[in-house]
Amino acid sequence: MLNAVSKGETSIDDALHSLKHLSAEDIGYAHIDHHRSLRKGFPEVIFGQNKSALQIIGIMERMDPWENIILVTRTDPEKAAIILSRFKNAQYHDDAQMIYFAKGSIPVIGKGVIVVITAGTSDIPVAKEAFLTAKAMGNHVETIFDVGVAGIHRLFSHKDMIESASVLIVVAGMEGALPSVVAGLVDRPVIAVPTSVGYGSSFGGLTALLSMLNSCSSNIAVVNIDNGFGAGYMAAMINRV
Amino acid sequence: MLNAVSKGETSIDDALHSLKHLSAEDIGYAHIDHHRSLRKGFPEVIFGQNKSALQIIGIMERMDPWENIILVTRTDPEKAAIILSRFKNAQYHDDAQMIYFAKGSIPVIGKGVIVVITAGTSDIPVAKEAFLTAKAMGNHVETIFDVGVAGIHRLFSHKDMIESASVLIVVAGMEGALPSVVAGLVDRPVIAVPTSVGYGSSFGGLTALLSMLNSCSSNIAVVNIDNGFGAGYMAAMINRV
Amino acid sequence: MLNAVSKGETSIDDALHSLKHLSAEDIGYAHIDHHRSLRKGFPEVIFGQNKSALQIIGIMERMDPWENIILVTRTDPEKAAIILSRFKNAQYHDDAQMIYFAKGSIPVIGKGVIVVITAGTSDIPVAKEAFLTAKAMGNHVETIFDVGVAGIHRLFSHKDMIESASVLIVVAGMEGALPSVVAGLVDRPVIAVPTSVGYGSSFGGLTALLSMLNSCSSNIAVVNIDNGFGAGYMAAMINRV
Amino acid sequence: MLNAVSKGETSIDDALHSLKHLSAEDIGYAHIDHHRSLRKGFPEVIFGQNKSALQIIGIMERMDPWENIILVTRTDPEKAAIILSRFKNAQYHDDAQMIYFAKGSIPVIGKGVIVVITAGTSDIPVAKEAFLTAKAMGNHVETIFDVGVAGIHRLFSHKDMIESASVLIVVAGMEGALPSVVAGLVDRPVIAVPTSVGYGSSFGGLTALLSMLNSCSSNIAVVNIDNGFGAGYMAAMINRV
Amino acid sequence: MLNAVSKGETSIDDALHSLKHLSAEDIGYAHIDHHRSLRKGFPEVIFGQNKSALQIIGIMERMDPWENIILVTRTDPEKAAIILSRFKNAQYHDDAQMIYFAKGSIPVIGKGVIVVITAGTSDIPVAKEAFLTAKAMGNHVETIFDVGVAGIHRLFSHKDMIESASVLIVVAGMEGALPSVVAGLVDRPVIAVPTSVGYGSSFGGLTALLSMLNSCSSNIAVVNIDNGFGAGYMAAMINRV
Amino acid sequence: MLNAVSKGETSIDDALHSLKHLSAEDIGYAHIDHHRSLRKGFPEVIFGQNKSALQIIGIMERMDPWENIILVTRTDPEKAAIILSRFKNAQYHDDAQMIYFAKGSIPVIGKGVIVVITAGTSDIPVAKEAFLTAKAMGNHVETIFDVGVAGIHRLFSHKDMIESASVLIVVAGMEGALPSVVAGLVDRPVIAVPTSVGYGSSFGGLTALLSMLNSCSSNIAVVNIDNGFGAGYMAAMINRV
Amino acid sequence: MLNAVSKGETSIDDALHSLKHLSAEDIGYAHIDHHRSLRKGFPEVIFGQNKSALQIIGIMERMDPWENIILVTRTDPEKAAIILSRFKNAQYHDDAQMIYFAKGSIPVIGKGVIVVITAGTSDIPVAKEAFLTAKAMGNHVETIFDVGVAGIHRLFSHKDMIESASVLIVVAGMEGALPSVVAGLVDRPVIAVPTSVGYGSSFGGLTALLSMLNSCSSNIAVVNIDNGFGAGYMAAMINRV
Amino acid sequence: MLNAVSKGETSIDDALHSLKHLSAEDIGYAHIDHHRSLRKGFPEVIFGQNKSALQIIGIMERMDPWENIILVTRTDPEKAAIILSRFKNAQYHDDAQMIYFAKGSIPVIGKGVIVVITAGTSDIPVAKEAFLTAKAMGNHVETIFDVGVAGIHRLFSHKDMIESASVLIVVAGMEGALPSVVAGLVDRPVIAVPTSVGYGSSFGGLTALLSMLNSCSSNIAVVNIDNGFGAGYMAAMINRV
Repeated sequence: MLNAVSKGETSIDDALHSLKHLSAEDIGYAHIDHHRSLRKGFPEVIFGQNKSALQIIGIMERMDPWENIILVTRTDPEKAAIILSRFKNAQYHDDAQMIYFAKGSIPVIGKGVIVVITAGTSDIPVAKEAFLTAKAMGNHVETIFDVGVAGIHRLFSHKDMIESASVLIVVAGMEGALPSVVAGLVDRPVIAVPTSVGYGSSFGGLTALLSMLNSCSSNIAVVNIDNGFGAGYMAAMINRV
Repeated sequence: MLNAVSKGETSIDDALHSLKHLSAEDIGYAHIDHHRSLRKGFPEVIFGQNKSALQIIGIMERMDPWENIILVTRTDPEKAAIILSRFKNAQYHDDAQMIYFAKGSIPVIGKGVIVVITAGTSDIPVAKEAFLTAKAMGNHVETIFDVGVAGIHRLFSHKDMIESASVLIVVAGMEGALPSVVAGLVDRPVIAVPTSVGYGSSFGGLTALLSMLNSCSSNIAVVNIDNGFGAGYMAAMINRV
Repeated sequence: MLNAVSKGETSIDDALHSLKHLSAEDIGYAHIDHHRSLRKGFPEVIFGQNKSALQIIGIMERMDPWENIILVTRTDPEKAAIILSRFKNAQYHDDAQMIYFAKGSIPVIGKGVIVVITAGTSDIPVAKEAFLTAKAMGNHVETIFDVGVAGIHRLFSHKDMIESASVLIVVAGMEGALPSVVAGLVDRPVIAVPTSVGYGSSFGGLTALLSMLNSCSSNIAVVNIDNGFGAGYMAAMINRV
Repeated sequence: MLNAVSKGETSIDDALHSLKHLSAEDIGYAHIDHHRSLRKGFPEVIFGQNKSALQIIGIMERMDPWENIILVTRTDPEKAAIILSRFKNAQYHDDAQMIYFAKGSIPVIGKGVIVVITAGTSDIPVAKEAFLTAKAMGNHVETIFDVGVAGIHRLFSHKDMIESASVLIVVAGMEGALPSVVAGLVDRPVIAVPTSVGYGSSFGGLTALLSMLNSCSSNIAVVNIDNGFGAGYMAAMINRV
Repeated sequence: MLNAVSKGETSIDDALHSLKHLSAEDIGYAHIDHHRSLRKGFPEVIFGQNKSALQIIGIMERMDPWENIILVTRTDPEKAAIILSRFKNAQYHDDAQMIYFAKGSIPVIGKGVIVVITAGTSDIPVAKEAFLTAKAMGNHVETIFDVGVAGIHRLFSHKDMIESASVLIVVAGMEGALPSVVAGLVDRPVIAVPTSVGYGSSFGGLTALLSMLNSCSSNIAVVNIDNGFGAGYMAAMINRV
Repeated sequence: MLNAVSKGETSIDDALHSLKHLSAEDIGYAHIDHHRSLRKGFPEVIFGQNKSALQIIGIMERMDPWENIILVTRTDPEKAAIILSRFKNAQYHDDAQMIYFAKGSIPVIGKGVIVVITAGTSDIPVAKEAFLTAKAMGNHVETIFDVGVAGIHRLFSHKDMIESASVLIVVAGMEGALPSVVAGLVDRPVIAVPTSVGYGSSFGGLTALLSMLNSCSSNIAVVNIDNGFGAGYMAAMINRV
Repeated sequence: MLNAVSKGETSIDDALHSLKHLSAEDIGYAHIDHHRSLRKGFPEVIFGQNKSALQIIGIMERMDPWENIILVTRTDPEKAAIILSRFKNAQYHDDAQMIYFAKGSIPVIGKGVIVVITAGTSDIPVAKEAFLTAKAMGNHVETIFDVGVAGIHRLFSHKDMIESASVLIVVAGMEGALPSVVAGLVDRPVIAVPTSVGYGSSFGGLTALLSMLNSCSSNIAVVNIDNGFGAGYMAAMINRV
Repeated sequence: MLNAVSKGETSIDDALHSLKHLSAEDIGYAHIDHHRSLRKGFPEVIFGQNKSALQIIGIMERMDPWENIILVTRTDPEKAAIILSRFKNAQYHDDAQMIYFAKGSIPVIGKGVIVVITAGTSDIPVAKEAFLTAKAMGNHVETIFDVGVAGIHRLFSHKDMIESASVLIVVAGMEGALPSVVAGLVDRPVIAVPTSVGYGSSFGGLTALLSMLNSCSSNIAVVNIDNGFGAGYMAAMINRV
């Protein structure tokens, strides 16, 4: 095809269009989507949970020659150690349980600042997953932790940073009320992330999730429980619009 | 027994003790607890839902000679009309769906002020039920309506009244976040009342209920969905402690 | 305060800041947030469900002198008729159950095109609510209806419009699979709206909601069941970033 | 009875009919259904979960003289090791957690090809259980793994194999959307298998299950979460019709 | 394209392949899939619930010139009357709430007999929907009604018909136990249909659904609650394998 | 067969045994189990919900020549009026929504007294269904209504009757606590019946049901929500042991 | 009091009555109900779960001088070892996880035979708990294991024992269908025990529980999931009526 | 500010008001609310679950100079050992899993007696958490353990203490019936605490929670499952009103 392009038989636009829809590489236990960077602007992110270290390494080896950055989410320290012994330059962030393998620095392409806020200390690991994802996707990201609604003045003391954000990610467990309050203060999109922090009738994050879905603020949309990765990804998408 | 008391054979304390545990009057479809005023400080309140107008009238007729105030909750306008045609001096509050039958004015016995707050306009009927109940039980009660967390400054403009309360009742549907915020501002007990206001994944108030039970504020306890009566009753009990 | 500004005692920035946090007008059953246009860039939208026609009219009368556009959501035809007899220039959209009261044409301020897609014919009312909201907030909006995953070629025939969108709203009931498929095709943010369309174990939209929250695509965030308004509002916020 | 048949006193049909309904052998902790091969065309499959290795061996010993193939599902490696030390010729498949004990090769009796498809890499163990079951029951079975809807072109590149199937088994966790898309492409019966792969509001596979039950495609029926065995069994039944 | 075929420029196979994936006709509120008969062997069935009579008529008018049979499910008598006034030759089955519009008799193409069984009298409407669908798709269909497990001998008296079936559809509400028992008797695929018949903790059919999904018989797969149509369709697909 | 018995070819025991398992009469929409009286000691009871008046009459006409008593449960007044116009001697109990058609008085065969207790006035209809069923099955039955745990002394004033019961049926909605308390007082079996009386998080009786299933008393077993009929039937069975 | 009885100042009836309501012994972490044998006919059974071995021993030591039999349920082997080192004559049944400490043989006081039936092998531990409880309470108990509905002929081969029972306990996990079938065969009370045996949508026994509560047979009542003890206790109560 | 106060430029009231709303100290992973003692009358309580020992120590070090008492809830023995090695004078209560670090004795400021009651022995840990919290907040607290409703006379033998309480905390798992009964006996506020004690359909305390929310007594409000801390805190707040 590249020949056809060089000879002028195919326009560059048509070639790009074709490339965007090329099939993935089939390695038996996975179909690796090599052209996803082209189609989606960011390579496939490997969901580490339920995959063995060997499966993850196998996928990374196929991606390595093609991609400038590879992320692996939900990888516990044992798996991470095996993977890092193969990819020496990759980093492991143990709070976010994430492998971050970037070749060189990542240029900032997001237009504004993404601010990640948590209600409590226990919500930080999920927030870190969002932070790392958005950063890897070329964004300037700031964080404010432990400013939940039981002491709302803690939130208000960060008003300037909150109002300067172009997109906000608000992470909360228990009753999940913080995104509603934050969204009421700004005219920016808020991604709400429920966490499984809590006990009893928090039902592993279900209460926070339902609370966020029923927000009386309108500039809110919600991702799955503990899905910091999805929130960071969505925020990056928005910051590029 | 009163004879025995008058003759000194029974102490007044013993007599009161006995009276407190006397059996209720059995009228077939109901056991009327005539000595509840003595035991609990307030007569039985008739739960109108699922009872016919005739059953309610029958119970009221047995209570009428003994009590200074009779409340009937959850009575729709049709039933209420039948009941009021029998008890001309009773009042019907159609927002709270409550019959209020007081003989003379009610002395204020609560120590402080009870403040009833709602998140939205649609939560007012439940708040009114709480308001009327607490008032009937001898309390000074104030209200602040429609100050939900999507515009938190609306709440803060009522800070003085909120801080002056001895007990607060906070009524909210949808994500039910308001009680957490209010409780974070005061050092008083907060009774949280979830309402069935909302749609979709509010699941008839379940989301607000769960949210309130998982509050990160600690001076909160919760009653059943739409249970304005229970909230008013509990607040009155607290205001007497 | 305006005096202070004119005399140079207060900077314009400070004055705007103060105005943004002014209290709302308290009319007993509602606190009307007159400065929300300033703070959030769009006036308060009236949630019509559970409010009486008279309450809605009362709120609209207070907003009328200040705002160029007023939206009322979830208003059935009976209530709408009463409201429109008072506000002759307002329009009622019966598929979306929405009152739309704009004074003059609305300038387009959104940067790109918002595309609203439905899986089925029965999802159209929710999509219309999203469409009208996004339009009222100054966006160019396009629609594609009835292209669910049971005949995926119907979707692919609209590929050009889908790929040209800056934000997508995807509305689906039943198994709610369409947003995942659409999000896999684009590198844009997708707002997923579950609807209550379905029967049996669709549980009033719960299945579609859960399905969307668990999407294997990452550029998705979700709003409440049947919440077309919220989706339109969020999309408009994103389109302005 | 066999005597009676040989003497002509009982017709072969009658004898078979009787045999089909003979009682099972009672060994205290189990009733072994020796005539199930006759009645159902395949011997009883031992559900290994919650049974001890000794109980499983006990049942296998009773079946061994009668059956050409014995399957044990849901057997962890520890139990399997004990069992295989007794039955040296049995095989253990650790991805499917299944013991496969066939005496000789299994003739293909299924009419067409059964194709097993998974949405992700993590769904493969369940798919393998289906694969082994269908194979053991005499079918030609093919597999396609990791072709979920977030990159739908991966699926389309296997279109020929998909269209050539007589029955399809589609295995997916998370939002469980793949069976709907596959069923929309073919005019064959699709058995949908939800898996417990996911986190947060996937609720151990409930979301995928509900999604599949509410499919807008009609040529779908669903089995229990992670029930690869049932899917393989049902597909084999269909492939024999 | 037909020209191209006639001229030999396109093979018939290629042309058929293209036709199978042609786009649907877009009439604004619906995309009508005219080539579905070709692709799936049966035209699109109109899901009547939530569609207006006019929308249904609009879709039928577009399908009428192309199809020999049109089915509309979940249509109440009022809607049906309007539709039949436009399509005089269509029939309405009020127990199944289905419109059946066939031009000429339908040839039997299914290989064996499909038997539809219900546990109770109240399950008959759902069974009728399955019966009509399977018949419309060219099958010989038999029925056995009201043979639930509380009097299991009622089932056994129909043993011959049950054993002669090539596919069975078993419809049950309440505890949903009948499919397990039937599947234990035969070596054929059983499609289990839970119904919303019951009260209290039957939760609108959820109990029957869960019961069927957890069947200890293996030749069972399940469709949505009250989804007689889906069961009939799936059985027809199987009967053609 | 009766001939065979008379001739001594069949023993009476064998004949009875055969009769007990005879097939039911198939009238298309129902299989009527004429020999149930023999097998179960009481004729089939017709579950009226979801059956038309004509279907009920059809079944009653087949049972009429054979049975001394016919019960129809869950029949609303409209259906009942039609049925009673055909069976003049049947009675309709509108609180229990039950048709009671006895030919002559019913001999008492139960050994002890069955006592039916309710927590509230609103639980009486369910209690009446239990009462009528147990009476129809030949038992002496007593009732105590409205003695819930909020005023436990009301219960204790009926201690003698409670302690004299051979079986107790305890009916309660809301928190469903009464059966635990009653069972703690007696050494008799208690059948607990949850009712749908309540609101909000009573979830249509689910709370009462769960509460009863988790009783810390051990002499309790539970039937479905609002299933007064089942409780009466079970109590009658126990009273005959 | 015994003195008062001996002197004739108190009748024996009155004394017994008083004894029946005497307070329990308070040992800080437990109130031991020494007169329960008198009041309920069987001593308190110790629920071992969540109690420490030392707490259990403490309670047993207080009961030891008074009771002829002591049962401890839900005790794992570690706790049991500690307890048995203190009470040498107690027995531990590890399948039922129960300590059985009887002094001498237990006289049979139950009138008929209690039959305990399980659907599968995995349900046996729960059945054993029921078996031991009923035996300890003086009953003749028989068992039939692994006769679930997927091979219903296994059940029918035990018809004589089933029909001879005075009470039946039917234990089943997964779809929980067996109690309905058994209850349809007999005119005796059936106690249904759901177990947590199953996977996926069995939800830890919830499916079996719901199935049993919705049985179309009427001579059934249900106990909590895995509550073999409660079933045995209830059956013993019934067998004494 | 203190200078301004001393100079009379700021009134003491104004200064206190400012202090009450001062921002919290931001230490990265937590915002420590130093002025909470002033605002709420009690310092922040550290929720230990999900925080590391080091994080807890970090927060305690910041609080130590300012506070007379520090509580840490939900701390397992391992974490507690690390923390106590740093704060030698702190105490660890292993039944309540709580660290209690008081400098000097705590003056009693609560007006009446708080009584903590449990239904069973297994509920004691939750009760202890409530007990310690209320004591730390300056209250006289009494306890009554293991007086559940299965032997209601155990409760009645403590009637005097129950009637002398100013606030009651009632802790129960399983069916959660005890708070209703206790609340019926007194005219005082009752805080109901559901516990996760139970099995099967207790669903980790959900049943007890629902039961308490639906209490037919009105002087009850409920906290989250196992939330002894919240109950103690709320009771302390009430006891100060």
